[in-house]
Amino acid sequence: MSFLQTVRGERLERVPIWLMRQAGRYLPEYRELRARHSFLEMVRTPALAAEATLQPIRRFDFDAAIIFSDIMTPLEALGIDIEFAPGPVIARPLRSRGQIAALGAMDAEPAPYVGEALRLARAQLPEHVALIGFCGAPLTLAAYLVEGGGSKEFAHFRGLLRSDPRAMHDLLEQLTELSIAYVKMQAQGGAQAIMLFDSWAGLHDTATYAEFGVPYNARIVEAVNSAGAASIAFALGASHLLDELKQIPCDATGVDWRTSLTTARRHLPGRALQGNLDPAVLFADRATIEREAQRVLDDGSGGPHIFNLGHGIWPETPIEAVSALVQFVHLYRR
Amino acid sequence: MSFLQTVRGERLERVPIWLMRQAGRYLPEYRELRARHSFLEMVRTPALAAEATLQPIRRFDFDAAIIFSDIMTPLEALGIDIEFAPGPVIARPLRSRGQIAALGAMDAEPAPYVGEALRLARAQLPEHVALIGFCGAPLTLAAYLVEGGGSKEFAHFRGLLRSDPRAMHDLLEQLTELSIAYVKMQAQGGAQAIMLFDSWAGLHDTATYAEFGVPYNARIVEAVNSAGAASIAFALGASHLLDELKQIPCDATGVDWRTSLTTARRHLPGRALQGNLDPAVLFADRATIEREAQRVLDDGSGGPHIFNLGHGIWPETPIEAVSALVQFVHLYRR
Repeated sequence: MSFLQTVRGERLERVPIWLMRQAGRYLPEYRELRARHSFLEMVRTPALAAEATLQPIRRFDFDAAIIFSDIMTPLEALGIDIEFAPGPVIARPLRSRGQIAALGAMDAEPAPYVGEALRLARAQLPEHVALIGFCGAPLTLAAYLVEGGGSKEFAHFRGLLRSDPRAMHDLLEQLTELSIAYVKMQAQGGAQAIMLFDSWAGLHDTATYAEFGVPYNARIVEAVNSAGAASIAFALGASHLLDELKQIPCDATGVDWRTSLTTARRHLPGRALQGNLDPAVLFADRATIEREAQRVLDDGSGGPHIFNLGHGIWPETPIEAVSALVQFVHLYRR
Repeated sequence: MSFLQTVRGERLERVPIWLMRQAGRYLPEYRELRARHSFLEMVRTPALAAEATLQPIRRFDFDAAIIFSDIMTPLEALGIDIEFAPGPVIARPLRSRGQIAALGAMDAEPAPYVGEALRLARAQLPEHVALIGFCGAPLTLAAYLVEGGGSKEFAHFRGLLRSDPRAMHDLLEQLTELSIAYVKMQAQGGAQAIMLFDSWAGLHDTATYAEFGVPYNARIVEAVNSAGAASIAFALGASHLLDELKQIPCDATGVDWRTSLTTARRHLPGRALQGNLDPAVLFADRATIEREAQRVLDDGSGGPHIFNLGHGIWPETPIEAVSALVQFVHLYRR
């Protein structure tokens, strides 16, 4: 499996490829499935989640599949009520120390249906395609839990972090314990790699991220490593956090489309990098797609590289653009 | 005027301070004014805009006032219809080459009422307080015009930039000509410094920003310089664009809260820097505010530094936090 070998730091001639959000709305067969089932129903029904996981693999020659789920999934084990509209909406945001202290202890194994979906998906995947599980970084989960949903500024969350850092650490501690149980369960379910998504890392300055982000992410990644799965950590908008990301002992680091892979490599020497084509490029003509993919491939050629977008694929992306990209990357030889 | 001297590169013992969005909703006297007048009415009525500009100066010992307006203001001179709800909403987004080509030529001096507001404000400001005008960067204005308003991904805008780069350049060219006329008018109206806000610079990778951002921003800054006003350029989320920002010939560069001033200085040696306290810090206790302000002051001490937040002040910010901050910065000696 070229994907797992590359994540673990081998430099192969061929560059493996998969795309963040490849199981999703840009696929007509996914939209058909969603017309009959709500998002939460799909996440919670192993057969449906496995089906969504497999759809992109049937259509494209991807080197990895990622389990269909959401970073908020394990939070119900803490008694937190979450809806999707389509972003997460928290009925009772945690806006104070008291609300954080009142959070239930983990009352059950977090989201066991994800383990079952992984088992079903792994059984149906071609052997050469790796299966990726994932979880959200505590600081990103906390951003949603405190704010109550997505936001441009996350003012409640960033305000609470500044006004009551102790309460924030308490929340992050709980989320980390939950996440560790969750990634172990995913590894047992058959996830060969587990990716940590820190989607809102970019809200923070370096000192704040070093204190509230890095230590918790590192503990989760260590749990992934101990469980025998390959570990990938992705932080969005983290061009200013590369030295902090170095402290997280993951096998591979995901890089968004803003930071060049060459720059990332200077800060993370020897580490496998995953990324980072701008998802907007898939709206250009084929010649432009190939030119930009070539640029990313060359940019990544200084070390182990898994090709990916720099962010999740957009729902309106033309299918043909994805085919053209996968073909082009697979013809590339280092 | 310590503010203007510092912007122009002098290293004084005292660090000047003002805050982005200091004329705004965190002030009770501003909210009172807004209860009686709509946002657009205030922007378009010179006496009201001047009043909002002066309010923070009466309350705090700021070294500069910034004219109350919006980056979208001059666009009505191109026949574009904009509402605020509260972010900009464009009734007819420019989603194609045809819609861009159909844009009216500049049919009048852009927003002459801003020039009048500047005159009124300058006449009433204490002599030691500098008056700042501003305008939006073409690439940021284009983001709103193509998308139709604010957005997390700006998918329409980034998709059009990739699918029809020529049309994007045509739009940026028109916006640049408009902006040049607008900044000249503001300099004549009494703006002693003019700040260029590139609020969505952070959407782009370095190659895209080098092609679609830098040249247009540079032309506007050159127009400011020729008009005799001091020039400040601010790009949000631009930690990965510091070498590109270097190509913009402004007197001072604004830095958001993510990028440390020390890092910014390594890329922009000798240039005055403005920033960059995280606006969330103003929600902490006084000791934390002073500690974080000290960190920013020390971080900025390697060259000319104007103290500011790293982004606009938030509407819910406590007034006392602002007083404490201004006092602390004014007691600091380099």
